Amino acid sequence: MKDADRSIELIGARTGNCLRVAIGFEETGLPYRTRSIDLRHGEHREADHLALNPAGKVPTIIDRSRGDAFVLSQSNAILMRLDGLRPGVLLPLGLTERSVAMERFFYFITDAIGPSHAAFFLRNSGDKVGSAALDARSVAAIQDASRFVENSAFMAGDAFSLADIAAFTIAAACKRHIDWAKAPRLQQWYGAMEERPGVQRGMAAFDTATS
Amino acid sequence: MKDADRSIELIGARTGNCLRVAIGFEETGLPYRTRSIDLRHGEHREADHLALNPAGKVPTIIDRSRGDAFVLSQSNAILMRLDGLRPGVLLPLGLTERSVAMERFFYFITDAIGPSHAAFFLRNSGDKVGSAALDARSVAAIQDASRFVENSAFMAGDAFSLADIAAFTIAAACKRHIDWAKAPRLQQWYGAMEERPGVQRGMAAFDTATS
Repeated sequence: MKDADRSIELIGARTGNCLRVAIGFEETGLPYRTRSIDLRHGEHREADHLALNPAGKVPTIIDRSRGDAFVLSQSNAILMRLDGLRPGVLLPLGLTERSVAMERFFYFITDAIGPSHAAFFLRNSGDKVGSAALDARSVAAIQDASRFVENSAFMAGDAFSLADIAAFTIAAACKRHIDWAKAPRLQQWYGAMEERPGVQRGMAAFDTATS
Repeated sequence: MKDADRSIELIGARTGNCLRVAIGFEETGLPYRTRSIDLRHGEHREADHLALNPAGKVPTIIDRSRGDAFVLSQSNAILMRLDGLRPGVLLPLGLTERSVAMERFFYFITDAIGPSHAAFFLRNSGDKVGSAALDARSVAAIQDASRFVENSAFMAGDAFSLADIAAFTIAAACKRHIDWAKAPRLQQWYGAMEERPGVQRGMAAFDTATS
């Protein structure tokens, strides 16, 4: 958190999308600082934030580490940038291993986090039936991911990757609904992730604003 | 389509996810051949396909181009692999330009295609209210993407990228619902994509099975 001018500013809140990025920073060790946005008071819809992210969403980063300020949104695009800034930590360098990690990463993005976001949207518009069906779909996808850790320590083999970050944040968000007894290896993986220092620090990144 | 042994086999059907990958192959020029799966007759749930993709989805590729058969699913992970096999075509090489392309790519994946997939799921389970709300959200995201092409020819600046592929397949799927009159630049972009040979060939890749 020293050298504020060169560190990357991460603007966000305690949402899954923002926590994924915070874990990415912690795991790569890239210097960053957080700035909290108050979603409940609609701060993401105010002019200052809309100037950075016209869609009015979080997270957004301001990266001054390579010179001019570069503004980037979309949590997954930010994670890919962190991989570009410090290759070999969030994704393996070899093409085959990288493909496997991407496959598992996108599995969680499209099959678990996607339905969960759609459920959140429907719940906010009062549709309890649709949101419940989509939340159930998300949980089923997470449970089905037990097969990824049946014979390996991480979601994409022997190394921690973006797939674990995506899997952990969505599993943490709906852990009460997961039938852990039916997925003992998944539970073991989840416990290991919970104990990982980078994951712990990332999950706590927005607990106290540093702005 | 010559040299069948070295070409990459793309197993799929005429779905947006499969067409995105087919366009990726066409744009990169990587040799591939298609094998059609009959989704209406549940061929994706048969043992042969489940052995390749336990989730019972399409697309899946079998890549023998680098030696042993390597099986990969998740359309977006396959596209990233194509970028790895032939760098600089689907994503720019420079870190900043690449980040912008990824930001726009993920915008379409999570904000337009994601809600559309969730709508499809709800529609199949008889929930017309939820599916209509999510389809509308998807269309709104596409229309809002007009801002990406306000001053540039492509979704992420001056070069064609994965962002255009993702945007085009979802825009094509719901073009009747887009208010084109309100998005003239988007319409211009869409017309240019429709005329692009690689896009045309990719969109037709599953019209006649080659198996």
